[in-house]
Amino acid sequence: MRRTFDGELQSMHGQFTKMGLMVNENILRAVKAFINHDKNLAMEAKKKDKDINEIEVAIENFCFQLIALQQPVSSDLRSIVMVMKASSDLERMGDHAVSIARSVIRVKERHNKRIPEVEAKIAEMAEIVKSMVEQVIDAYVRVDEEDAYRIAQIDSEVDKHFVEINHYCIKQMAMDPEVVPGGSDYIAVAGYLERIGDYVTNICERIVYLKTGEILELN
Amino acid sequence: MRRTFDGELQSMHGQFTKMGLMVNENILRAVKAFINHDKNLAMEAKKKDKDINEIEVAIENFCFQLIALQQPVSSDLRSIVMVMKASSDLERMGDHAVSIARSVIRVKERHNKRIPEVEAKIAEMAEIVKSMVEQVIDAYVRVDEEDAYRIAQIDSEVDKHFVEINHYCIKQMAMDPEVVPGGSDYIAVAGYLERIGDYVTNICERIVYLKTGEILELN
Repeated sequence: MRRTFDGELQSMHGQFTKMGLMVNENILRAVKAFINHDKNLAMEAKKKDKDINEIEVAIENFCFQLIALQQPVSSDLRSIVMVMKASSDLERMGDHAVSIARSVIRVKERHNKRIPEVEAKIAEMAEIVKSMVEQVIDAYVRVDEEDAYRIAQIDSEVDKHFVEINHYCIKQMAMDPEVVPGGSDYIAVAGYLERIGDYVTNICERIVYLKTGEILELN
Repeated sequence: MRRTFDGELQSMHGQFTKMGLMVNENILRAVKAFINHDKNLAMEAKKKDKDINEIEVAIENFCFQLIALQQPVSSDLRSIVMVMKASSDLERMGDHAVSIARSVIRVKERHNKRIPEVEAKIAEMAEIVKSMVEQVIDAYVRVDEEDAYRIAQIDSEVDKHFVEINHYCIKQMAMDPEVVPGGSDYIAVAGYLERIGDYVTNICERIVYLKTGEILELN
């Protein structure tokens, strides 16, 4: 009985990890589409989000059945609850990837005036976010509380990038009207990345919860 | 035993409803602060968010104990899971209220050039969002699936407002550089309201789940 249950817990963790990797891939896809103005890739990111939503539903149902049939307590229950809540965070990170993809698709052939230095900054920001997502999935697998604290701290770098991009774009938009439509897209995309960083922080909080049973605010 | 359990479920629903009302109040507070450029009110909204975070933690712990001690199945378990996940949605709606409040506090005495027609549109948008939040709490209490479908549909009006505000601000910012800092704040605030509408839709989906056991996408 316990062996079956352990196997099912393993399977749940596996599904969650898989979902995390799918989300990370889709964030990268969306950001790449944005940087390269690649509408096809953006469409692909939009499509892939369906798979992410499906796996979230599957995970939720699986967790529900696990609780109903196995009536787990203490740390097992805690880890199931963790996956149920954190899979919502992953799903929303995926939604933000779609929002980034949409901003690529939305742009008509209007040839927005681009700001290369902002695009470079967004690429840099995306790189940090990507590494946060990768690390948090890894920390989750190992239930590594120390790592969770450390990863949550990287979020302040993400926030710093957001503020810088925001200020820089506003300055540029005020100087050159042609920059306005593109600039406001830059701000939006940086905002999505910033929110993804927040969700990673949420998952870090859940790892701490898994280890200690304490629900903390890490930002 | 069952009587105690029913009482505890009632208490859980009561806590969730209370949290919903607190979040709604804080959204209104933040939007009012934004429209009236009222920094004190914005500071108050920021403070109140702590209470919201605390009640979320309390609800999560309460739900966890309920599952661990009572080992509920089927519809009871479903309603506990619903509250656990939907309280995260409420908490994030609260976070967006804080983001709106922050954009009020951030503005130095720089006297942004205002666009009254956009402020009116944001107030209108906030009114719709407020009514969605109120209705979803009510639908949740009554587990009213029909209402959940109806409320989720209102979200398209919220999205429409967002797109309109976005386009109008971009046009104005391109015509008048002095409008740029304020215009980009308008777009951000409309974006937060739009996200709050999305979270309401999530809760609608959870009401449907509570009634039918089916996890749907309503947007």
